[in-house]
Amino acid sequence: MAVYTEVGDDELVEFAAEYDIGEVLSCKGIAEGIENSNFALTTATGSYILTLYEKRVNPDDLPFFLGLLDHLADAGIPCPTPVHGRDGQALRQLCGRPAAIVTFLAGMWPRRIAPDHTAELGRALAELHLAGVDFPMTRTNDLSINGWRPLLAKSESRADEVAPGLAAELSAALDVLEKNWPSGLPGGVIHGDLFPDNVFFRDGRLTGLIDFYFACNDMFAYDLGVCLNAWCFEPDLSFNITKARRLLTAYRKVRDFSADELDALPLLARGAAMRFLVTRLYDWLYTPADAMVTRKDPLEYLARLRFHAGISGPADYGLD
Amino acid sequence: MAVYTEVGDDELVEFAAEYDIGEVLSCKGIAEGIENSNFALTTATGSYILTLYEKRVNPDDLPFFLGLLDHLADAGIPCPTPVHGRDGQALRQLCGRPAAIVTFLAGMWPRRIAPDHTAELGRALAELHLAGVDFPMTRTNDLSINGWRPLLAKSESRADEVAPGLAAELSAALDVLEKNWPSGLPGGVIHGDLFPDNVFFRDGRLTGLIDFYFACNDMFAYDLGVCLNAWCFEPDLSFNITKARRLLTAYRKVRDFSADELDALPLLARGAAMRFLVTRLYDWLYTPADAMVTRKDPLEYLARLRFHAGISGPADYGLD
Repeated sequence: MAVYTEVGDDELVEFAAEYDIGEVLSCKGIAEGIENSNFALTTATGSYILTLYEKRVNPDDLPFFLGLLDHLADAGIPCPTPVHGRDGQALRQLCGRPAAIVTFLAGMWPRRIAPDHTAELGRALAELHLAGVDFPMTRTNDLSINGWRPLLAKSESRADEVAPGLAAELSAALDVLEKNWPSGLPGGVIHGDLFPDNVFFRDGRLTGLIDFYFACNDMFAYDLGVCLNAWCFEPDLSFNITKARRLLTAYRKVRDFSADELDALPLLARGAAMRFLVTRLYDWLYTPADAMVTRKDPLEYLARLRFHAGISGPADYGLD
Repeated sequence: MAVYTEVGDDELVEFAAEYDIGEVLSCKGIAEGIENSNFALTTATGSYILTLYEKRVNPDDLPFFLGLLDHLADAGIPCPTPVHGRDGQALRQLCGRPAAIVTFLAGMWPRRIAPDHTAELGRALAELHLAGVDFPMTRTNDLSINGWRPLLAKSESRADEVAPGLAAELSAALDVLEKNWPSGLPGGVIHGDLFPDNVFFRDGRLTGLIDFYFACNDMFAYDLGVCLNAWCFEPDLSFNITKARRLLTAYRKVRDFSADELDALPLLARGAAMRFLVTRLYDWLYTPADAMVTRKDPLEYLARLRFHAGISGPADYGLD
């Protein structure tokens, strides 16, 4: 739940006057998202989302994020489209913070994942990857293979508070990942954080992809690894092979993956599990108890890490 | 900020199908309100607010609150109108909690109060009081004169942690209030909590009154006392007589108050200050530091309590 900055009515009216969006009718803080302050903004012309970028987002990255949304929306990807002001700018300041208005997307994120959802997801992810190919800007993935060891180092001395032996297990897993991390696989812009709460559906059809604030350049198959972890495990942490098969086969129909990508998928999926494990572990240990965010259990990702370490071939992901 | 209950997409679609409001397009938790979980609900037919009533609201009071909104909306008061299901019911269950859908009101609450705002407020408050006269249900004001002493008793031993001498000052003020509390003044349904964040404006015109979950039967002039406290003091706690005059004269044009009411106003306003002081004091002392609510400073209301104790006549409120 997050609204870190309160926006006054006078400031908002002045801000909105920079755009051709009509009179402001209402503005309500949304209790979603933990990185930024988001508001449901209603004007005479429709519904929008107003975002104030808080300190966890690097302002230097904002032109990449907003430029990417413009690019993807132009290519027909169902993502929020930045609204540009009369001066042509999508990014300006409100209440001392960088701020932008984007279009509102209808749909709701699925609380109970069905195989049909992962099929829709696979198709949309492949379309996203293809649409990003000719986007001219780039952004390094700070939370990939080179970022995990330094992040783990900050938690290592206390990791065993979460589970006995955790520090040693993660360090050993990192050794394997670092030694075997592939290079040269097809890549481009990835979403990097495509969890169910960032994907909207309506009547079973995917209607929106949101929250591109971890988007960056990396291997496409790594993004598939993120999605396998986020969508294909049950609440009891068992792997649902049907959901994985639907995800991968739907993806493949739009952008087929090479034999090399498929071979690397277990390791990339394991890396994706490591990525969320180390960030969750850090947050778990160092988020003050009175912070207005819900900490997420890092051990959910330990189970995923172990699962992908035991994969013997594509059949384990449901592929022939 | 408050969403205490997460509503799943499947449960919501099933719930919404009980109403003639069309397909659900989106539902986002609103970071406002500390009593209930509120959601901005968009359907094929428009925008609504979905409320799940949490434990601080007594379910037995809900027929009063929803019936009152129906009654007031019928009388032309700009308040949320309950949406009735196909079975005629406005109140049903969602995620194990009582839940209702009401219409969405355009407008924003004013962060910086101008005298024009208090004039609009005075008119609307008088219209609200008149519109409630023929509402057949009643609800006791649990947070009036009989409720303050027991509430203060729970905080008394620790009140001096907030300000030295506070316990003694409040006890003495309560003696005066209890001894002189009037009876027989005109009354009916009052809002009871008409703070700026419960009043919407658009282009300087009042467009909505919300949050009727403290509405009850009491003296009308007591509601005026609540508003004097909530709208006519500056951030430095000084009293703004212009705002008070505009509030009272605008009210009076719609429902004139008697000489008795005017005489009682300083004591009622003092009582209204006591009401918020004792609830804030209790919350200040007993809200866990990690609760997801912002505690409000009780001492803001001590300044108000003292101000009203020093009133010598109507001229101090800006009246002739």
